[in-house]
Amino acid sequence: MNKAAIIEFFKQEFPHYGKITIDDVSNRSATIRHRIGKEELRPGGTVAGPVSMLLADVVIYVAILGELGRVPLTVTTSLNINFLRKPSAESDLIARCNLIKVGRTLVVGEVNLYSEGKPDLVAHVVGTYAVPPLSKR
Amino acid sequence: MNKAAIIEFFKQEFPHYGKITIDDVSNRSATIRHRIGKEELRPGGTVAGPVSMLLADVVIYVAILGELGRVPLTVTTSLNINFLRKPSAESDLIARCNLIKVGRTLVVGEVNLYSEGKPDLVAHVVGTYAVPPLSKR
Amino acid sequence: MNKAAIIEFFKQEFPHYGKITIDDVSNRSATIRHRIGKEELRPGGTVAGPVSMLLADVVIYVAILGELGRVPLTVTTSLNINFLRKPSAESDLIARCNLIKVGRTLVVGEVNLYSEGKPDLVAHVVGTYAVPPLSKR
Amino acid sequence: MNKAAIIEFFKQEFPHYGKITIDDVSNRSATIRHRIGKEELRPGGTVAGPVSMLLADVVIYVAILGELGRVPLTVTTSLNINFLRKPSAESDLIARCNLIKVGRTLVVGEVNLYSEGKPDLVAHVVGTYAVPPLSKR
Repeated sequence: MNKAAIIEFFKQEFPHYGKITIDDVSNRSATIRHRIGKEELRPGGTVAGPVSMLLADVVIYVAILGELGRVPLTVTTSLNINFLRKPSAESDLIARCNLIKVGRTLVVGEVNLYSEGKPDLVAHVVGTYAVPPLSKR
Repeated sequence: MNKAAIIEFFKQEFPHYGKITIDDVSNRSATIRHRIGKEELRPGGTVAGPVSMLLADVVIYVAILGELGRVPLTVTTSLNINFLRKPSAESDLIARCNLIKVGRTLVVGEVNLYSEGKPDLVAHVVGTYAVPPLSKR
Repeated sequence: MNKAAIIEFFKQEFPHYGKITIDDVSNRSATIRHRIGKEELRPGGTVAGPVSMLLADVVIYVAILGELGRVPLTVTTSLNINFLRKPSAESDLIARCNLIKVGRTLVVGEVNLYSEGKPDLVAHVVGTYAVPPLSKR
Repeated sequence: MNKAAIIEFFKQEFPHYGKITIDDVSNRSATIRHRIGKEELRPGGTVAGPVSMLLADVVIYVAILGELGRVPLTVTTSLNINFLRKPSAESDLIARCNLIKVGRTLVVGEVNLYSEGKPDLVAHVVGTYAVPPLSKR
């Protein structure tokens, strides 16, 4: 699927993900962003951790859609996140995924999360998706 | 903090977590649940992975509030989730946390996630929170 | 495979794991131990982290052998370890594995690590093995 | 510590790590390698998983020594490894670490593992070390 098709797919299937924008889908990688407002913040003014986890899970899915097309039964099997720095409360949160393995049954993506306009990583994620065997795609 | 105080704290600070209910807070453990509706499902009728991650992150926080009280600057430093089985689309998702380490600067919680009324684990989580040193609590 | 068969298998295939003893193999679980000597310690007198990782990886494999028999091509796909307390330098390190998922292609094991005779967890592990599909076992 | 000092430190403190060579220590990064022989292989001719975990744990430690100097009480707090491809049984296993966070109490390193001479990642690791607060270094 190309970027336009993935955007359309998300509009249909994930209408409640309205704060997420798909910036780029290319060779085994993808970049998306999440607007940050009051609902995304927790006491202390930091972006709530689950926003980063959501964004990381979605960006790996977007990269898989770009690489393999719309594959039913693609599900997350594991995700590991390390929070590194406090994200900005005023900037979009950006997630860039690079697929480091596209296997027959498992796809592994590495994700870097940033606050827009700042160079430092705010979180790092590795996530694994199970994909159906080729015969069932 | 006891259960009633934590419920009040969540009403104040996380008003958008209205689908989460705190069932139990006791000795280094906590149980919470998330109602499952259309917004929590993804294509295929399974509960979206980020709902489980959110619930796991929150239940560890609830257990920490029960153990240490309201500690400012308590933040997630890492979270590892393994998805094991498809959760039910019709049942509440339940998360039970047990703190396996309460250290001076790090607290580690283990979380089992279930669909209400079913014995099998749907996901398993280990998460780490940084807590401020005793002198700053 | 039962315990005696697994012990024999390890003697044949992993002769350099002489410090590891298999204590128990039962229903989807296993317990093994590692003798601790000078080679296992690092500066400061603590057990080196890789000893715990090795022991956790092996105990999940032992539990799989007990559950599925000798399955070729069984390989670790991921392992997540949290170190919780300093293990004793004078006691055996003990690992108890419980398989929390035995799926068609993935098996997930949870492992608790202790120093013999002490109740507190020294480390906690979740590991995933890929197993060949039933048709190839 | 520079590369020569770290090599000397390992000779003194980890004499049983004789199969590991330190190739490079530079700005918040390090590269080391492990010779692969019979002892490192498991049935099927693949490199045993614990060898990769050991190498990843050590390379993060080397990068920390290069960045912070010899800091007592530096211990691994967590490590997450994903195995991606079968390493070569005939080539050295190489680990390259990049420290993605050097905080006051936690240091996080990302590690790529390769078989020498081949471009594909064989494993990917994220590991966290606790370091003593500045006042105790």
